[in-house]
Amino acid sequence: MSEWIEAINWTTIGTKALIVSLQLIGILIVFFIVRAIGNKFISSSFTKMSTQRNISGGRAKTLEKLTSNAFSYVLVFILITLIVGIFEYDVTALIAGAGIVGLAIGFGAQGLVSDVVTGFFILLEKQIEVEEYVTAAGLDGIVEEVGLRTTRIRGFDGTVHYIPNREIGSISNHSRSNMRALVDIGIGYSENIDEAIVVLQAACDRVAAEDELIIEGPNVLGVNSLGDSDVVIRILAKTANMEQWGVERKLRKAMKEALDANNIEIPFPHQVNVQKEEK
Amino acid sequence: MSEWIEAINWTTIGTKALIVSLQLIGILIVFFIVRAIGNKFISSSFTKMSTQRNISGGRAKTLEKLTSNAFSYVLVFILITLIVGIFEYDVTALIAGAGIVGLAIGFGAQGLVSDVVTGFFILLEKQIEVEEYVTAAGLDGIVEEVGLRTTRIRGFDGTVHYIPNREIGSISNHSRSNMRALVDIGIGYSENIDEAIVVLQAACDRVAAEDELIIEGPNVLGVNSLGDSDVVIRILAKTANMEQWGVERKLRKAMKEALDANNIEIPFPHQVNVQKEEK
Amino acid sequence: MSEWIEAINWTTIGTKALIVSLQLIGILIVFFIVRAIGNKFISSSFTKMSTQRNISGGRAKTLEKLTSNAFSYVLVFILITLIVGIFEYDVTALIAGAGIVGLAIGFGAQGLVSDVVTGFFILLEKQIEVEEYVTAAGLDGIVEEVGLRTTRIRGFDGTVHYIPNREIGSISNHSRSNMRALVDIGIGYSENIDEAIVVLQAACDRVAAEDELIIEGPNVLGVNSLGDSDVVIRILAKTANMEQWGVERKLRKAMKEALDANNIEIPFPHQVNVQKEEK
Amino acid sequence: MSEWIEAINWTTIGTKALIVSLQLIGILIVFFIVRAIGNKFISSSFTKMSTQRNISGGRAKTLEKLTSNAFSYVLVFILITLIVGIFEYDVTALIAGAGIVGLAIGFGAQGLVSDVVTGFFILLEKQIEVEEYVTAAGLDGIVEEVGLRTTRIRGFDGTVHYIPNREIGSISNHSRSNMRALVDIGIGYSENIDEAIVVLQAACDRVAAEDELIIEGPNVLGVNSLGDSDVVIRILAKTANMEQWGVERKLRKAMKEALDANNIEIPFPHQVNVQKEEK
Amino acid sequence: MSEWIEAINWTTIGTKALIVSLQLIGILIVFFIVRAIGNKFISSSFTKMSTQRNISGGRAKTLEKLTSNAFSYVLVFILITLIVGIFEYDVTALIAGAGIVGLAIGFGAQGLVSDVVTGFFILLEKQIEVEEYVTAAGLDGIVEEVGLRTTRIRGFDGTVHYIPNREIGSISNHSRSNMRALVDIGIGYSENIDEAIVVLQAACDRVAAEDELIIEGPNVLGVNSLGDSDVVIRILAKTANMEQWGVERKLRKAMKEALDANNIEIPFPHQVNVQKEEK
Amino acid sequence: MSEWIEAINWTTIGTKALIVSLQLIGILIVFFIVRAIGNKFISSSFTKMSTQRNISGGRAKTLEKLTSNAFSYVLVFILITLIVGIFEYDVTALIAGAGIVGLAIGFGAQGLVSDVVTGFFILLEKQIEVEEYVTAAGLDGIVEEVGLRTTRIRGFDGTVHYIPNREIGSISNHSRSNMRALVDIGIGYSENIDEAIVVLQAACDRVAAEDELIIEGPNVLGVNSLGDSDVVIRILAKTANMEQWGVERKLRKAMKEALDANNIEIPFPHQVNVQKEEK
Amino acid sequence: MSEWIEAINWTTIGTKALIVSLQLIGILIVFFIVRAIGNKFISSSFTKMSTQRNISGGRAKTLEKLTSNAFSYVLVFILITLIVGIFEYDVTALIAGAGIVGLAIGFGAQGLVSDVVTGFFILLEKQIEVEEYVTAAGLDGIVEEVGLRTTRIRGFDGTVHYIPNREIGSISNHSRSNMRALVDIGIGYSENIDEAIVVLQAACDRVAAEDELIIEGPNVLGVNSLGDSDVVIRILAKTANMEQWGVERKLRKAMKEALDANNIEIPFPHQVNVQKEEK
Repeated sequence: MSEWIEAINWTTIGTKALIVSLQLIGILIVFFIVRAIGNKFISSSFTKMSTQRNISGGRAKTLEKLTSNAFSYVLVFILITLIVGIFEYDVTALIAGAGIVGLAIGFGAQGLVSDVVTGFFILLEKQIEVEEYVTAAGLDGIVEEVGLRTTRIRGFDGTVHYIPNREIGSISNHSRSNMRALVDIGIGYSENIDEAIVVLQAACDRVAAEDELIIEGPNVLGVNSLGDSDVVIRILAKTANMEQWGVERKLRKAMKEALDANNIEIPFPHQVNVQKEEK
Repeated sequence: MSEWIEAINWTTIGTKALIVSLQLIGILIVFFIVRAIGNKFISSSFTKMSTQRNISGGRAKTLEKLTSNAFSYVLVFILITLIVGIFEYDVTALIAGAGIVGLAIGFGAQGLVSDVVTGFFILLEKQIEVEEYVTAAGLDGIVEEVGLRTTRIRGFDGTVHYIPNREIGSISNHSRSNMRALVDIGIGYSENIDEAIVVLQAACDRVAAEDELIIEGPNVLGVNSLGDSDVVIRILAKTANMEQWGVERKLRKAMKEALDANNIEIPFPHQVNVQKEEK
Repeated sequence: MSEWIEAINWTTIGTKALIVSLQLIGILIVFFIVRAIGNKFISSSFTKMSTQRNISGGRAKTLEKLTSNAFSYVLVFILITLIVGIFEYDVTALIAGAGIVGLAIGFGAQGLVSDVVTGFFILLEKQIEVEEYVTAAGLDGIVEEVGLRTTRIRGFDGTVHYIPNREIGSISNHSRSNMRALVDIGIGYSENIDEAIVVLQAACDRVAAEDELIIEGPNVLGVNSLGDSDVVIRILAKTANMEQWGVERKLRKAMKEALDANNIEIPFPHQVNVQKEEK
Repeated sequence: MSEWIEAINWTTIGTKALIVSLQLIGILIVFFIVRAIGNKFISSSFTKMSTQRNISGGRAKTLEKLTSNAFSYVLVFILITLIVGIFEYDVTALIAGAGIVGLAIGFGAQGLVSDVVTGFFILLEKQIEVEEYVTAAGLDGIVEEVGLRTTRIRGFDGTVHYIPNREIGSISNHSRSNMRALVDIGIGYSENIDEAIVVLQAACDRVAAEDELIIEGPNVLGVNSLGDSDVVIRILAKTANMEQWGVERKLRKAMKEALDANNIEIPFPHQVNVQKEEK
Repeated sequence: MSEWIEAINWTTIGTKALIVSLQLIGILIVFFIVRAIGNKFISSSFTKMSTQRNISGGRAKTLEKLTSNAFSYVLVFILITLIVGIFEYDVTALIAGAGIVGLAIGFGAQGLVSDVVTGFFILLEKQIEVEEYVTAAGLDGIVEEVGLRTTRIRGFDGTVHYIPNREIGSISNHSRSNMRALVDIGIGYSENIDEAIVVLQAACDRVAAEDELIIEGPNVLGVNSLGDSDVVIRILAKTANMEQWGVERKLRKAMKEALDANNIEIPFPHQVNVQKEEK
Repeated sequence: MSEWIEAINWTTIGTKALIVSLQLIGILIVFFIVRAIGNKFISSSFTKMSTQRNISGGRAKTLEKLTSNAFSYVLVFILITLIVGIFEYDVTALIAGAGIVGLAIGFGAQGLVSDVVTGFFILLEKQIEVEEYVTAAGLDGIVEEVGLRTTRIRGFDGTVHYIPNREIGSISNHSRSNMRALVDIGIGYSENIDEAIVVLQAACDRVAAEDELIIEGPNVLGVNSLGDSDVVIRILAKTANMEQWGVERKLRKAMKEALDANNIEIPFPHQVNVQKEEK
Repeated sequence: MSEWIEAINWTTIGTKALIVSLQLIGILIVFFIVRAIGNKFISSSFTKMSTQRNISGGRAKTLEKLTSNAFSYVLVFILITLIVGIFEYDVTALIAGAGIVGLAIGFGAQGLVSDVVTGFFILLEKQIEVEEYVTAAGLDGIVEEVGLRTTRIRGFDGTVHYIPNREIGSISNHSRSNMRALVDIGIGYSENIDEAIVVLQAACDRVAAEDELIIEGPNVLGVNSLGDSDVVIRILAKTANMEQWGVERKLRKAMKEALDANNIEIPFPHQVNVQKEEK
């Protein structure tokens, strides 16, 4: 065995070790330089962006932190693989194994990446803000928190919904403008449509005069459908945000009372009965 | 250890370093040349295209910027990998790791790529324009913005919908031509169909004469179905875009009044009652 | 450092450069030859095909252009990778990177490829033509354009539908033959079925005599169902394409009038009422 | 530069070229031999199969042509890659690129492969034949053509459906045997069930005696359900293929007339009314 | 050129050819030995299994043939690739190409593999047998054939369903035990429930006494629901397989007659009418 | 040719063969050692686990056998590939081929793996046991067998369902605790709610006193809804497992009789009729 | 053969073995150091996190154990592959095989990884806690256990639901705040709306005064809809968590009694009957 030890070319090994050390040092130096430059770049570009795109300080900070973290993870990852690469073992076996495990993890974790990517754009494009009333993933309510992985929405019944961002496809934001109040009301087939429209418009005008939450209208549009038992008249208004339900309730009450006062019938379902003797 | 240092063939290393430097310089020169040529090519071909295909200046600029950015990213990416490749480390380990992470990121980010590809073609093929009334991804409203990643649509009730472009399959654009107004009206089974058609057509003609938003018709088509309690007559017209609802409302009112004036019944639901004594 | 420069074997490098140049020239020559031959082959085979399969000139040209473009892209792609391969850099790093990005792009762009493949076969197999009335991807209307990526259909209400070809699974083409007109009509349970069939068949024959758009029938098939309140008789005809709705409307009117004239009841919904005193 | 040229070992290159040429020739010879043998084998095995499995000549020819083409494509493909391999360029770059593009194409084209595989088995297992009435992919009609990529079905209303074979999961073939005619008929709750069954069975027997399209039955099975207003009796028969609808129509008419003739009530919907004075 | 030929080391080439030949022969010998042993092993283990697990001869033969074929295909595949490998061409190009095509084929053909795997287990676990009444993939009927790729089921209406095995998720087999007969019958709210239960149980007992297809019961369970107009009583029995429908029909008739005979009302839908004068 | 044979370096080949043999022997020795150790480890850890987690002997044995088999398969697989690796053929071709076939098989067989993984956890976490009443994959019934690949459930109507474990997402186990009996009963709008609640609670108490299968309650909760024609009162109880249906039936009968005895109306659907003369 | 043995360079082999041994020892030392450091890091960072984020001790321990296990598995995995790599066999074959099997396992096991990833975040973000009432994967009930793989929920009817975490998309947690009680009540069209609102508000106030589980309201909002037969008034309150149903029941009873006491009608469905003589 001693001859085996002698056969080892110690000089070569030493030289190799030296080279490896030098490489390690070189890699680490490059690593720290790149990280410093990268972080500075990220920081400055986010400062610029938050000024340009008018993004609030807190939001910009969240996005900057995310980008900076992602950058660090990528650098560390490259660092590790470079260091591993220096030690010249045949890492093919590693690849083989990694292939199997990686597939499982990759698929399992893709949801996570998908969450973060979607979350990033929801934040960046300011699609929803805290306190807004939105519909996302089939659930609606007031936004409580927009995170990178999860969005938290509180339904009107008090339920708290945790929605992974990847589940959010289209987002409907109901808090971005004046809303529409729409009321359909049916009058009898034997009533005069023109008269009814005049009465309803007058009632609408009275409601509009009293209620400053109504931005536009309400206007009587006309005959929306010829129902089984009634002629359906549609009324449309524009209201302040989140006030559409209140305005609709007021309009319904006002119009019902106006029709009653003018003896215009809001009909029950009708049926014509034809009597026939039993065979 | 000193013998180890001596054992290092400094000349070889120096030569290698020199070669690497020369390669680096060569690569960078090629890089800048290719980028310059590429950008010029993109710019000129978009100028040509915008003239040929009659694409507005703003839209062409958006597309050009996108293409130019994509081109730059690809070049930078190739540059980095070439430079990495020069330093002869065994990057196999990198591949192994990248395989795992890449899978997760690749899957997570594919949605983003899908968004941009779809957005590119929506813009290029001018499928929808701002201010048009469209249906996409099951949501309808007026287009507010067509972006590369997201399309913003404002529903008629004031809600703002953010639709990731990948969620858009078929797009239905309701603002590209004259629209159809279609009204079905039921008359009693005991009425004379021919007489009713004459009355309805006359009413249609009166409406058409007064309303220049009606492009064609309205025409009474005939007996569309034999319902439980009524014979359903269908009337069809072509109107100016977005005026179909208004015209339909006018037609409904006019036809209801015409039938009333001619004593033609619009029947309530009928039922024949056969009386039977209890067992 | 001068010794390093001397240590570079300039002759080897020069020789290498020479070989690379020769290889480049060789590759380019082969490239142009293959492209010329390929294009000629594509051109001639499409000429042959358009004669054999009776494909119109315009359509054949579209398909030829597509094939020729695809061929060129593939060649250029091979050319680039061969040239890159000549420069002996270790492109493994490129692969690693390309793996990540490629995955994202590959998945994102597969929809595009899928569009083109489907579009190619829709054109080749002449499944739909411009001006035909079709149903595809759940939308129906008149085909306005069959493109490689998108098919444009105009709905009967004037809406323009842009359908990415990949969304098209089964296509239903309603413009390829005579169509069926089908009318169900209910008569009272107390009527004589045989008599009613004779009356209805006579009415059908009168309509058929007057209307040359009716190709076959209409024929009374018999008792299609025993409904809650009526015995449903089915009438079937074959009409010229797109005339089925008009013919059905005529048949409905004629049959209703024929039954009235012969005092055969088209019954309203019936109900037997059993009176019971309150407990 | 002249020294560079001299430095090139022309003999080695010449020798190499010679070897490459010999390899090329060898590969081509093997290629033609394998192709000839393969085609002969395919041809003979299809001849054998078409005799054994009783497959019609046309169908066998289609399948043989498909197999033979597939075989040729595979061979040519191997040929090309072998030839490319001879020229010793590092094709790793090709792989890298091919990975990206291939992914997109692979995914895009998998539908095509899926079509052909499914089409192959539909043909081989004779699941559907031209002129048969089938249901596939939710569409039903008469088969007009079974292709490798697409199946064409003509609906009863005249519409032509193009169904990509991949969309065909389970196929329901309605033209392979005698079919069932099934009629449910309701009698009044106050009728004697035994008597009604006798009357109905007699009517069934009369129909069966007159109509040779009825293979078996019709038989009165018994009380199928106790409905809201009627006791539902079920009648079942077996008829010649595609005659089930005609037989059902005849049975309905015969049974209605038989019940009328025997004063057995087919009841209208019943309701018990309890009168109550208003509060 | 002659010098080139001379430069070829013919001895080396000859030696190589010899080695390749020897390798080929060695591989072939190993191949035949492995195949023989493998087939013997498969055969013996299936014989053992069919005895142990009580699998019928035909079924065991199908499974053995499948396994043996699969084994052969795998061996031949390994043989080919080993032989290819001997010829030392760089098959990397092959891999590149195979990657693209393989992806398409792999995806396209996975359905086929999925069919066979599922079919294998349906056969092995004896989930369904020919002549059994089953529900699979949403279709039900009598099993006509269980193949490795397709299962053929004949619906009760005569339709033949071809179901690719991959489409079969859960299988419901209705032919493996006694079945349940379940009848719900409604009595009037004014009837005495205890009396009705006694009457119904007596009727059930009479039916059970006459019909030996009834294995257990029928028993009156009690008040299953309080309906709008009736108190619903549930009756449950266990019958011989496939006789459940016949027994249910008999039970319905018997119970209806028993209730009639005891003057217990099976009520029609009730409604309380409150009269109100028009306003 | 003889010179070719001489040119073969027989000594090298012999030495190589010797080394290969030694390697083979070494590998086999390691293989048997690892297998022995592994099996002992699996066995002991399962013994420990079955004691700690209170898992029945049979179940632990099933899981142990599965783990031990999986371990053996992995070892044999590694053994084979190592042996193949020794013979130094370039197995790259194998990889190329395996890629294609493997993809198809991998995708096709993933269902199988998915079955086993899910089955393993269903067994390990004791989610369902034989004889329990469960709902899985939309089918419910009594569990007959929980296998690694398939779960067999017998529906209450006698049907045997074979459910591949992968189809089982959420499992609902109805046999793990006392169950809820819930009855809704409607009383007339003119009845006194307080009185009705007293009467119903008294009836509930009587039932509870007689029936020891009732664990808790039944309690009258209050007015659950104001229906169209009745005020709906909800009653809730807790019963022994699987007795909930029987208890509900008893409660319905008792409460109906109690309301009758106290002259509290269970109303039929009401309708207010307004008479109007025909126009 | 002896010459073969002599030809083996025993010194080289011995030296190699020695190097391998040294490498093995080196790897193991690094392994143990890295594991120790890693575990210490995990432990300390979880201690810090549990203090900062206010995570209960038990939950932090679960998460720490999971992270520590995952870390160990990864290390052992790297260790094994490194050791395999030392033995210089060509593991390419291993990769080939692993590719096939790995694909199947990877896909099969991805569900498992997905379960754990989702479970980790449910725990970390405290989305649900034991004893809370939640809705997840379409099932609702009281959380019994939140595991890394499975969440166990007990439905109100006593059923135990086992939900694999991957099946949980959005979670709705109903136990995080006060809940809403919402009651709609219909009054007659002939009633005075203002009077009804006063009466209802008074009743609401009485309930609120008696019941301290009501946090806010109840308030009468106004006319929520104009129904077919009634004017629907909506009442809204905020209650203590899980008390919403009880409060709604109390409100319904109170409001029904208040309307009765004030002679305000809660109407039955209305219908206008038009009498017509039979033709």
